[in-house]
Amino acid sequence: MTKFKARITVTLKAGVLDPQGKAIESALGGLGFSGVDAVRQGKVFDVTLHAATSADAETTLKSMCEKLLANTVIENYAITVQG
Amino acid sequence: MTKFKARITVTLKAGVLDPQGKAIESALGGLGFSGVDAVRQGKVFDVTLHAATSADAETTLKSMCEKLLANTVIENYAITVQG
Repeated sequence: MTKFKARITVTLKAGVLDPQGKAIESALGGLGFSGVDAVRQGKVFDVTLHAATSADAETTLKSMCEKLLANTVIENYAITVQG
Repeated sequence: MTKFKARITVTLKAGVLDPQGKAIESALGGLGFSGVDAVRQGKVFDVTLHAATSADAETTLKSMCEKLLANTVIENYAITVQG
């Protein structure tokens, strides 16, 4: 079993309302940042796990996303496995 | 003014306790995922903004992180500007 580090990025699908992003957008405006068009907020998970191969690690991580980490009705996820 | 898309990733500094990450770790264990060593949770912000150059956009984004998006006492941030 090798140790792998992976990053999972979970973002809202296009078209899904993001009130938190909107709030950040207006807070940035209030702080004097002009020219901000849009802000969307997402989550990132840095997972360290043991697996036989990098492909195995990716399969496990995909299953984690489907079962726990992402709500696939409204969210997309992306997985990057580092060495 | 050109439109730039950027991704800001905010993660907890090493050594800072992450109870949310710990909770996810034990939830994954409860779901039968073995071999998980550690989970750390962070935030991601997808910002669309107008700026003269990519370097200008990066300067603005850095300032946004320092002032609002990251708590630099306990968090690190990384900025990636796409075309």
